[in-house]
Amino acid sequence: MAEKLTQTERDEDLAPLLASGWSMVDGRDAIARRFEFRNFIEAWGFMTRAAMQAEKLNHHPEWSNVYNTVDVTLSTHDADGLTALDVKLAKRMDKLAK
Amino acid sequence: MAEKLTQTERDEDLAPLLASGWSMVDGRDAIARRFEFRNFIEAWGFMTRAAMQAEKLNHHPEWSNVYNTVDVTLSTHDADGLTALDVKLAKRMDKLAK
Repeated sequence: MAEKLTQTERDEDLAPLLASGWSMVDGRDAIARRFEFRNFIEAWGFMTRAAMQAEKLNHHPEWSNVYNTVDVTLSTHDADGLTALDVKLAKRMDKLAK
Repeated sequence: MAEKLTQTERDEDLAPLLASGWSMVDGRDAIARRFEFRNFIEAWGFMTRAAMQAEKLNHHPEWSNVYNTVDVTLSTHDADGLTALDVKLAKRMDKLAK
């Protein structure tokens, strides 16, 4: 069972994500980011690769897509907040979106 | 340029969708439906096939996914409301989800 991030982990692992495009979600221990692409095909390509990573991690995003835009929210349901899995998936998504 | 559905088209083409799982969205000329699957892989399979249809029609959904659930909203941005493209994509999605 995943454990919520400690304060040290938040300072070391979460802070860099918050400094580079992710933000805390109001009223939830969750992070969110909007990814924008040139068109639907590019957005879908990103989502497909991210979906594979999510399934491999057995950790799935809350996300929505409108044409070239993908809005992602990450949190760990079982832990009712952010865990190392969210940090891992966020980093992989950032890498895939590059 | 897509034209908004006429009243006759709404009676003949939209009504069957509204009778079988789709509903009008409050405050918008749009329809929405929730699709539920056994797990993420099944949900993703549906989305992938629907994405191909959307790209072929050059008409894209607003949709979100959380694990096994896919929420879809359809409307035609250029027409500021429902057009024949929305009816077509809704029917294809229903078929894919079966």
